[in-house]
Amino acid sequence: MPRQIRLNAFDMNCVGHIQHGMWAHPRDRSMHYTDLDHWVSLAQTLERGLFDGLFLADILGVYDVFDGQPDASLRNAVQIPVNDPLLLVPAMAYATQNLGFGVTCNLTYEPPYTFARRMSTLDHLTKGRIGWNVVTGYLDSAARGMGLAQQPEHDSRYDVAEEYMQVVYRLWEGSWEDAAPLHDRERRLYADPARIHRVKHEGRHYKVDAIHLSEPSPQRTPVLYQAGASARGREFAAAHAECIFVNGQFRHNVRDIVADIRAQAKTCGRDPHDIKVFVGATVVVAPTDAEAQDKLAEYRAYASSEGALAHYSASVGIDFSRYGPDEPIRFVSNNAMRSNLEAITVRSRGSEWTLRKLMQMMVLGSRQAPIVGSPSHVADEMLAWMDEADVDGFNLSRTVVPECVEDFVALVVPELQSRGVMKQAYAPGTLREKLFGRAGRLPPSHPAARCRW
Amino acid sequence: MPRQIRLNAFDMNCVGHIQHGMWAHPRDRSMHYTDLDHWVSLAQTLERGLFDGLFLADILGVYDVFDGQPDASLRNAVQIPVNDPLLLVPAMAYATQNLGFGVTCNLTYEPPYTFARRMSTLDHLTKGRIGWNVVTGYLDSAARGMGLAQQPEHDSRYDVAEEYMQVVYRLWEGSWEDAAPLHDRERRLYADPARIHRVKHEGRHYKVDAIHLSEPSPQRTPVLYQAGASARGREFAAAHAECIFVNGQFRHNVRDIVADIRAQAKTCGRDPHDIKVFVGATVVVAPTDAEAQDKLAEYRAYASSEGALAHYSASVGIDFSRYGPDEPIRFVSNNAMRSNLEAITVRSRGSEWTLRKLMQMMVLGSRQAPIVGSPSHVADEMLAWMDEADVDGFNLSRTVVPECVEDFVALVVPELQSRGVMKQAYAPGTLREKLFGRAGRLPPSHPAARCRW
Repeated sequence: MPRQIRLNAFDMNCVGHIQHGMWAHPRDRSMHYTDLDHWVSLAQTLERGLFDGLFLADILGVYDVFDGQPDASLRNAVQIPVNDPLLLVPAMAYATQNLGFGVTCNLTYEPPYTFARRMSTLDHLTKGRIGWNVVTGYLDSAARGMGLAQQPEHDSRYDVAEEYMQVVYRLWEGSWEDAAPLHDRERRLYADPARIHRVKHEGRHYKVDAIHLSEPSPQRTPVLYQAGASARGREFAAAHAECIFVNGQFRHNVRDIVADIRAQAKTCGRDPHDIKVFVGATVVVAPTDAEAQDKLAEYRAYASSEGALAHYSASVGIDFSRYGPDEPIRFVSNNAMRSNLEAITVRSRGSEWTLRKLMQMMVLGSRQAPIVGSPSHVADEMLAWMDEADVDGFNLSRTVVPECVEDFVALVVPELQSRGVMKQAYAPGTLREKLFGRAGRLPPSHPAARCRW
Repeated sequence: MPRQIRLNAFDMNCVGHIQHGMWAHPRDRSMHYTDLDHWVSLAQTLERGLFDGLFLADILGVYDVFDGQPDASLRNAVQIPVNDPLLLVPAMAYATQNLGFGVTCNLTYEPPYTFARRMSTLDHLTKGRIGWNVVTGYLDSAARGMGLAQQPEHDSRYDVAEEYMQVVYRLWEGSWEDAAPLHDRERRLYADPARIHRVKHEGRHYKVDAIHLSEPSPQRTPVLYQAGASARGREFAAAHAECIFVNGQFRHNVRDIVADIRAQAKTCGRDPHDIKVFVGATVVVAPTDAEAQDKLAEYRAYASSEGALAHYSASVGIDFSRYGPDEPIRFVSNNAMRSNLEAITVRSRGSEWTLRKLMQMMVLGSRQAPIVGSPSHVADEMLAWMDEADVDGFNLSRTVVPECVEDFVALVVPELQSRGVMKQAYAPGTLREKLFGRAGRLPPSHPAARCRW
């Protein structure tokens, strides 16, 4: 059987996510992000299309590098306003049976004791369909919201993250034994105290002395997502992640990164294919190539270059408002730089880049060039990515919602199924079981397994 | 028109809440607390019964004063395991139209910047039906989970709370003007940066320099609940709370407390009736008094004295496991003492109390004696409370679920309606509009109003 494609929808509890300006399109409904019906309807469409998951990004802070202020971001709704992603999951979980939910939470601002309970709660309520995208944050504006002058330095954030993972693993895996919940009405014993262990941790950054507040949930540790692409980020991902998000314009670049992460995973004693890699993509599909190009042109009329630049300025820490159209852009490695590859393809081209070129590249309101065409063309492109870049699937950004998702489900999914690369039905069990086709707990090679009682 | 009764259901995302042991009853379904269907069904029943709200308690930590360990609490599921309450709200809100949701969040462990966003998100998703029960926590076991040796001292926690309120009021009320969201597709302007203000706060406990991440929600500030009954707690409640929970066995005691809080509210420049007071109660109702007594006897067979004592030990900071049945109990004022009246009625009796008397008083698994009888008797008792103690309504604890709620809705609600003291339909608008019959924003006399842009 050919390798089975994995599909995530990529979204965020806000108006403008990746492709900026689309909210102004007359048929777009992203302004309804404050309405639960909007999200439930999205989740049901995704489940109809057998998507593995809905992945919810998040950011604390506002993009204020462009022109040194947040105004462009606010005018164009560039990930601001942005509401809490976790709170969307329960309503969508209630209305679906199989769709997974990957949620971004910044560990820097979530104490491990209460965060571990939040995730256990969601794992219970979704019956084992929750994932956590581990991020450490990169915005100084968020740090200022939280009472710090600026973000901690990049590598030290990963040291904090390593310690944080040890604490939450111990709470999820080590506090309650499987046999601790008794639920025994006859003997009137709900749980067996002898099988519930206090987690004592006293480290450099965290100190915990408590039992986990939640009884064991279906997956215990949520499915772990990560998007770090810096050297330190990849090292972290290779050790901990079960799903990785990568971005890149060229398959050979992404292939190198994927190979590196899989090799590092092997060094950590893990099976390199215990990590599913999702590449970011945007699809504009219609019954024919010509219709798809027409649709792209129609969408493109709403793309916001100001929004795209406001976002990109924050990602790479460069104020593009200070550049003339043909002035060479000086890319420099920067502490504020997003650690998920955003800058890498651009940096490799060095001083060739100008604002004019950059804006031409921003077809739909971001640097992510869309795959445009008939279902057959889109499927060809997706399979070429899987073959040539060794990715397991895609993290699909939205354009005009909900029609972009409806189009994909109606046109591309059947095409992928007819080629034998996409499931005809969901596998049973938890998100981890569905993704990896085996037991719901992390395998012994994963560091969480070493934190069991 | 006679004063209209207000009804809250009192619950918690756990197995044993107030009346301990009931989970072992063959018809009880509180073990299904990890299932969204359980909660959605509860919310729909409450809405059918025109309840004003569902109030969700929470506790971080475990009751470990009894016998110096958490074992009795774990055996009897005494508020442990306990899952996150916030995550229940979205699914229940999706399945209802009018029911309000009051949720307990401990501000000690929630940074104001991210907490303000969580509440704004819920206010959006519920279309203005969210309330926040402001607590500062009282368990040393929670403090140890969060990396502290013990809870901060009681009064200083209220100082922190005062500053915290200033910060979140400014985020909710002062950051985005009403006219800031433009949502203008034509001009492609989502928001007006000139009408969005950065909140700069540098105080003793908090430092924030950020715009609020969420655009204005229907209520902006959630409806504010409070349960503090200490001198400092009442002072805080009189200044901030819109709804207050009180507990007490005797109407004259509660009447004094209510009078004191209303008088203090007046001193703060507020209308004393801008505070709705809910008294905790447990009801066992059946078509006739005799049937209700039979039902009580049936329930009572499952009441857990061990569970009740484990809970009460933590509430008052006394290890009851060390007392013989007839040894006088020495109640002392204690820093760990719950600040919501739990100890007051007992303390006033001084050394008269013994374990034997205490356990006789714990009819259904707590010190809250149930109101037992026919619908007419229950309504008489409830109205006597309203008349004699000047309370606005009730915070109804669960016994055997869901039948306790179904019984109340089927039997007591129609009785109250027939007496003209209970609404026949929900009022329109947000939770605040429904409760106070006026505009959804806090009135100018409330301290939040002084934090507007």
